[in-house]
Amino acid sequence: VPAIVDRSPLMIAISSGGTAPMLARWVRATLEQLLDPSLGVLATLLAAWRQRIVATIRAPAARRVLYDALLEGEVADLVRAGRLADAAQALAAQLSTAATAPAATPRVALVGAGPGDPGLLTLNALRALQRADVILHDRLVSPAVLALARRDALRVSVGKESGGPSTTQDHIHSLLLQYARSHRYVVRLKGGDPLLFGRGGEELQLLQREGIAFEVIPGITAAVAAGAYAGIPLTHRDHAPGLRLLTAHAGEGREAPDWRDWARSRDTLAIYMGLGQCAVLSRELLRHGRAADTPVALIENASRPEQRVVLGRLDALHTLVQQHALQSPMLLIVGSVAGLADKLHWFGAAPIVEPAAECAA
Amino acid sequence: VPAIVDRSPLMIAISSGGTAPMLARWVRATLEQLLDPSLGVLATLLAAWRQRIVATIRAPAARRVLYDALLEGEVADLVRAGRLADAAQALAAQLSTAATAPAATPRVALVGAGPGDPGLLTLNALRALQRADVILHDRLVSPAVLALARRDALRVSVGKESGGPSTTQDHIHSLLLQYARSHRYVVRLKGGDPLLFGRGGEELQLLQREGIAFEVIPGITAAVAAGAYAGIPLTHRDHAPGLRLLTAHAGEGREAPDWRDWARSRDTLAIYMGLGQCAVLSRELLRHGRAADTPVALIENASRPEQRVVLGRLDALHTLVQQHALQSPMLLIVGSVAGLADKLHWFGAAPIVEPAAECAA
Repeated sequence: VPAIVDRSPLMIAISSGGTAPMLARWVRATLEQLLDPSLGVLATLLAAWRQRIVATIRAPAARRVLYDALLEGEVADLVRAGRLADAAQALAAQLSTAATAPAATPRVALVGAGPGDPGLLTLNALRALQRADVILHDRLVSPAVLALARRDALRVSVGKESGGPSTTQDHIHSLLLQYARSHRYVVRLKGGDPLLFGRGGEELQLLQREGIAFEVIPGITAAVAAGAYAGIPLTHRDHAPGLRLLTAHAGEGREAPDWRDWARSRDTLAIYMGLGQCAVLSRELLRHGRAADTPVALIENASRPEQRVVLGRLDALHTLVQQHALQSPMLLIVGSVAGLADKLHWFGAAPIVEPAAECAA
Repeated sequence: VPAIVDRSPLMIAISSGGTAPMLARWVRATLEQLLDPSLGVLATLLAAWRQRIVATIRAPAARRVLYDALLEGEVADLVRAGRLADAAQALAAQLSTAATAPAATPRVALVGAGPGDPGLLTLNALRALQRADVILHDRLVSPAVLALARRDALRVSVGKESGGPSTTQDHIHSLLLQYARSHRYVVRLKGGDPLLFGRGGEELQLLQREGIAFEVIPGITAAVAAGAYAGIPLTHRDHAPGLRLLTAHAGEGREAPDWRDWARSRDTLAIYMGLGQCAVLSRELLRHGRAADTPVALIENASRPEQRVVLGRLDALHTLVQQHALQSPMLLIVGSVAGLADKLHWFGAAPIVEPAAECAA
């Protein structure tokens, strides 16, 4: 009995002829992940239009190009969104365009790669990676994530790396336009979530100005991953009503942080660091009235096998970073929830607890 | 005639029953890309070991765990690298480890279901759902997400629903313990991310106190999804340096929000609403000095096919909610980035733009 993936009228049967049923089961589970549930609806729609398509586009090669466009483009997206009437209308429009002059529209997906564990990619991100002709990725995106992309995709590394050479945002913009115009489907892959602390918003504005169709696939941002993998509830009835995502990177005409505002917050602070900012950060928070024994957690390489968690108190921040030789990518959590990591950790090695923090907790 | 992907002894047949052969062809091409050519070799290896594995690990559930490890770990890697002798050796080692390993301890995974689009589940969350014996899920978790779980998993709906009967947290705790002790693998499935704005932290503390092993699988939280799907960069060099995740739910001994602090924030505010709080919220923010024409975006059902986005200004918040009869789940974004949604939206229907907001933007 074969394992079945049911996207009626499309059916996929997997069989090992009885030799390796567990492998067949595993392949089935993998395909369930990869094949969108709406594929059956798409199949039904295409079946209903089949005669008209064959009658209109007589050359099989041209039909194949049209079908690829239908299956990977707007029509599939609309079906996925449950907008069947719009999908049928888009199909009709593409068919009549193809009948006169076929032209593929450029498409860019701004995709979140998450913090590093490839298991934190979303299903939509995985599908985009497996469809991409070109992947323009930040240097920090983990190799394990890139390994999930289509084998023959062109991979281009761009973006900042501390110490190393970095690609300017202008150059990233020009690469984005160039590839979007020369290839069918471009993935712009960014660490974490693409619209948090990167220049994703500016990249979308560029694409919009240039009339290039895009989509956005969100990702797990470092603070959320660090909370989950270090055992730190980011909000908690007894500790913090909300969460603030902040960055302490100094830089290019950026305003200085509003330290007073940060120091007084009842919400958990999750700070996407510049390691160099630790001394200033703790000095300023203390100067604006934050308690010296406020628990802090430093999470290096959140979610990756080499993750390290260091727990301590705010006034020792700079010392902790130096003493444990912490490196980027690092996330800092400030607030009493950080003190919970000592008991609630479950992933990888136990946190390093500085004695002073234990007293404070 | 079905399209065939051949990884003998593993065979995959794709058929649309003649209704959409081009779709079957496209799925076949996709699978050819996705399934490593070495899969057939792996199938042959597993087939050769099958009798020994069945004789050694008698419980099917334990065998499933072993096979997942073999198919996704070192053995598969070695086969892919063409090192068959090493692969067989690694398989033998894993089998003997699995045979001597102590009985599986109860395990609970606290899993984020994301905002509703099942494509926003992480790969790890999907694997957990496909392994779970019991799924204890919030009522708001979308049926499309639950549909991805193992077919024979026990599904138990708990948690709050506005208007309807709700399960108390004490009762959720007792169910969690009961199932963790009677079943192998329990998934506690929560909307969005499990450690943000739920009582996930308290559930982890309970499991820790009771000595039950757990793991946490993060999820895409509503604010991140709403930003991506409505075209709102949550941070942006020209608009907002950071993001605040807040909740305006009044409730059980909770302190009132620090309105002054919220009103003065330069960061984007993402507010997980109580719809009933709109009037109070806009009144208090205005009273504490926030500009009346501050752009706001109301995102109902973020990421779901029925998503609606309403753009307007802060002083019209209450009117917007009533006029458009907005319903839960809803997320409110306050800050000038909300004004970008008008141009950067790409998913579903275009936002509803209130004329006043256009003037303000």
